[in-house]
Amino acid sequence: MEKIAVLGAGSWGTALALVLADNGHDVRLWSHRQELANEINTQKQNSKYLPDIILPEGITAYHNLQSALVDARTIVVAVPSKAIREVLANVRELMKQPVTMVHVCKGIEPDSLKRVSEIISEEMPAEILKDLVVLSGPSHAEEVSLRHPTTVTSSSNNVQAAERVQELFMNQHFRVYTNPDMIGVEIGGALKNVIALAAGITDGLGYGDNAKAALITRGLAEIARLGSVMGGNPLTFSGLTGIGDLIVTCTSVHSRNWRAGNMLGKGHDLNEVLNSMGMVVEGVRTTKAAHQLAEKYQVNMPIAEALYNVLFNGHSPKEAVDSLMGRGRTHEMEDLVNIMENRLQ
Amino acid sequence: MEKIAVLGAGSWGTALALVLADNGHDVRLWSHRQELANEINTQKQNSKYLPDIILPEGITAYHNLQSALVDARTIVVAVPSKAIREVLANVRELMKQPVTMVHVCKGIEPDSLKRVSEIISEEMPAEILKDLVVLSGPSHAEEVSLRHPTTVTSSSNNVQAAERVQELFMNQHFRVYTNPDMIGVEIGGALKNVIALAAGITDGLGYGDNAKAALITRGLAEIARLGSVMGGNPLTFSGLTGIGDLIVTCTSVHSRNWRAGNMLGKGHDLNEVLNSMGMVVEGVRTTKAAHQLAEKYQVNMPIAEALYNVLFNGHSPKEAVDSLMGRGRTHEMEDLVNIMENRLQ
Repeated sequence: MEKIAVLGAGSWGTALALVLADNGHDVRLWSHRQELANEINTQKQNSKYLPDIILPEGITAYHNLQSALVDARTIVVAVPSKAIREVLANVRELMKQPVTMVHVCKGIEPDSLKRVSEIISEEMPAEILKDLVVLSGPSHAEEVSLRHPTTVTSSSNNVQAAERVQELFMNQHFRVYTNPDMIGVEIGGALKNVIALAAGITDGLGYGDNAKAALITRGLAEIARLGSVMGGNPLTFSGLTGIGDLIVTCTSVHSRNWRAGNMLGKGHDLNEVLNSMGMVVEGVRTTKAAHQLAEKYQVNMPIAEALYNVLFNGHSPKEAVDSLMGRGRTHEMEDLVNIMENRLQ
Repeated sequence: MEKIAVLGAGSWGTALALVLADNGHDVRLWSHRQELANEINTQKQNSKYLPDIILPEGITAYHNLQSALVDARTIVVAVPSKAIREVLANVRELMKQPVTMVHVCKGIEPDSLKRVSEIISEEMPAEILKDLVVLSGPSHAEEVSLRHPTTVTSSSNNVQAAERVQELFMNQHFRVYTNPDMIGVEIGGALKNVIALAAGITDGLGYGDNAKAALITRGLAEIARLGSVMGGNPLTFSGLTGIGDLIVTCTSVHSRNWRAGNMLGKGHDLNEVLNSMGMVVEGVRTTKAAHQLAEKYQVNMPIAEALYNVLFNGHSPKEAVDSLMGRGRTHEMEDLVNIMENRLQ
């Protein structure tokens, strides 16, 4: 039994708190909203983010960050990617003991183009940040909270840290694998939200499963292309945090990125969509970062580019998707072959 | 404009005949059933396999094989994989001129363990079989017949033949890529039906999208493992005929393999399921072949094995899926890394 702080009581933070509590840990779930912390403590519910789920004993919610962090050896960071720096600035002031940080955030910071692990390393002093682990994979929070079978990957530059986190989370319903490739895991997790938005658009336009399968397949190639150039292992993109997470995000009604894309495809405009969601749509911010990364690394990312033009340059979703279906190499494997041969020489 | 014979007037043969007719070709669609040929010619419909679609001018149906084959330079083979040898024996007797054969069949022959292209090469004399091409990819017939955007791969040992077939089928809605790896294309197309049955079972058991994404991801790894040992290029399994076709077959209500698995997951027995489908479920036959291939090539295929035990050894679907979720390596990439390094050295 370990004291674990989970920062962020959205759907994913709450579901992971539930897994840790199921495993017998003493979980302190921090929310930036007092009323949400109160609801969790008094009603054992998080009605906005995980409706209909009764939370187990073993989760205590806090609005006070200091109280949540007392004696924690492990901190799970589950806040929206754009809030990370602000939350960590507060953590930095309060932490005395060294901790393992596990982040479960899926995004890339626009302009700085940093991955979440890089942001955390920047914000946390080395004497406090003992280890840094990313936990990622095909895992809708709603299903995890229902104890439906789920598999994820624990990744760290330190194998022992990845294994310790594997041990904390692993149970009969929630299986955790390890993978040493943090860059590949983080890029796959972040970029899949871009493809999910695009998949939602094709569905919103009324195109079928054939078109969506093509989009997912070519989206994966585009993610692998960028991720490999950035130093990830191309094989990671064929695993749970690559194709697995991409599939679940592009084909499930639970995915808010897909839902946002679907509304765009049906003709609503971006502000209207974002206002109606009431939750953070990470893919919008990540599309901006993807556009900048494609330029920086000189990687061809036609799907991310087309989506960038829909979101930020007023292009129509239909024209964007039709142009994607109309373009492309006649030999599908050329790019991937080049990537693999460069990597594995 | 070319005279093209399409053998088999099931949903896929009929949809491909429609694509070819849209491209201005003179299409002769052969059916082993007189009344189906009559319906297509008189009503311009195939009400059993593609309900609600009006077929274009340019398709003529035949029950007489010889009439269908007159002057054909290209034959599209779209019969169920277990009928191929019988149909080709008849073609062999009737053909005089050399032809390009394009097969669109997804299966492996149990016992002989031959791919469809190997069966065709065995059955057709070399002086008649000028070229052999396989056309495969994420392509539900229903959507193709509605002219929804679809992408597929044309593969042959002879690049010119693959490109000629690309040219015959390519249009605004139906995009064709080439890939020289016939083995990988055929193995991916055949084996995805095994994983689709398993995905249907997890859905039938009421498990969620997280479980299905894990199954698809690990199913792809298992297909890539076998296909690479058999001589396919591991990268092909990341393309349209690998992950693309796997996604569409595992996540779409159109897929009869998924539907059959879904009924099994809900507790119906195999005979009952097969009787109620009224169409061929290729995955059942392919599961038997996959079991034999795993043994022959000494490849670890836990999903195919578990499914084999459900279909042929009376194991319960729930136990089979739970045992799959419970097993496995703790380091997910080990196998794939080994495969890639062996191949690309």
